[in-house]
Amino acid sequence: MDSRFLEEAIRLAVENVRKGVGGPFGAVIVRRGRIIGRGTNLVTSTNDPTAHAEIVAIRQACQALADFQLTDSEIYTSCEPCPMCAGAIYWCRPARVYFAAGHEDATRAGFDDSFIYRDLAVPPEKRTVPFLKVAVPDFLLPFREWESKSGNVRY
Amino acid sequence: MDSRFLEEAIRLAVENVRKGVGGPFGAVIVRRGRIIGRGTNLVTSTNDPTAHAEIVAIRQACQALADFQLTDSEIYTSCEPCPMCAGAIYWCRPARVYFAAGHEDATRAGFDDSFIYRDLAVPPEKRTVPFLKVAVPDFLLPFREWESKSGNVRY
Repeated sequence: MDSRFLEEAIRLAVENVRKGVGGPFGAVIVRRGRIIGRGTNLVTSTNDPTAHAEIVAIRQACQALADFQLTDSEIYTSCEPCPMCAGAIYWCRPARVYFAAGHEDATRAGFDDSFIYRDLAVPPEKRTVPFLKVAVPDFLLPFREWESKSGNVRY
Repeated sequence: MDSRFLEEAIRLAVENVRKGVGGPFGAVIVRRGRIIGRGTNLVTSTNDPTAHAEIVAIRQACQALADFQLTDSEIYTSCEPCPMCAGAIYWCRPARVYFAAGHEDATRAGFDDSFIYRDLAVPPEKRTVPFLKVAVPDFLLPFREWESKSGNVRY
């Protein structure tokens, strides 16, 4: 752990607010002591609800490495990741994540993600955004196509 | 619910595998009976671990609407969303989500996301990817900056 990277994530977050391009969040991806990706929250300025600091940084770092995995990398983020960003972090598999503010600090500042954790724990059809399973005959077709194809790149 | 949109999501998923550009997943976003976004899994071909079908479709639909919210929209996806995509769905707030294959079908085909749900339920520092809170003096600085600034766009 090198707290200078966490300070850089915080600096990016503050700068992001000053620029007026999004929420108070910043993240950097570090590999072998070097920053390979930077991100800030750009949701409102880019009309992209997925443009959280961690997602932006992950995408940039993956482009830099030309890889869809961030093995041996570490994520430094100004605030504890939300469920979406946590999910993204699992998919790119960094070694670990360091964060400064906790989710309770974010909640106090008006950025509450606890409703998502709560809602994901209830059955899909009972969520505040209902996730409804629909019976269609072809539901397994994509997986059958995948299994019948050779040379698939696993991820 | 209009099953033709679910069939379109499945068709996109199958086509995606045939093209060899990513995993067997497709999604469409529908608003007032019209498709405003389409997405397929492009993780391996674009080196973007966040490029799941739902995320790609959400980003496209938001660009089409020039908005970071998908109120009054519905998401039709070939498979039950993973935790990352579910998180993204909460942030863009569509009316509901319809899915064809369940997560158990995905697991059987080699796409298991249950480890993420399991891991997110344990304390951050004990996860398989450890999420470690680090004490730094400036941890609240971004939120203070946000609160002191007028004209912030909430999201």
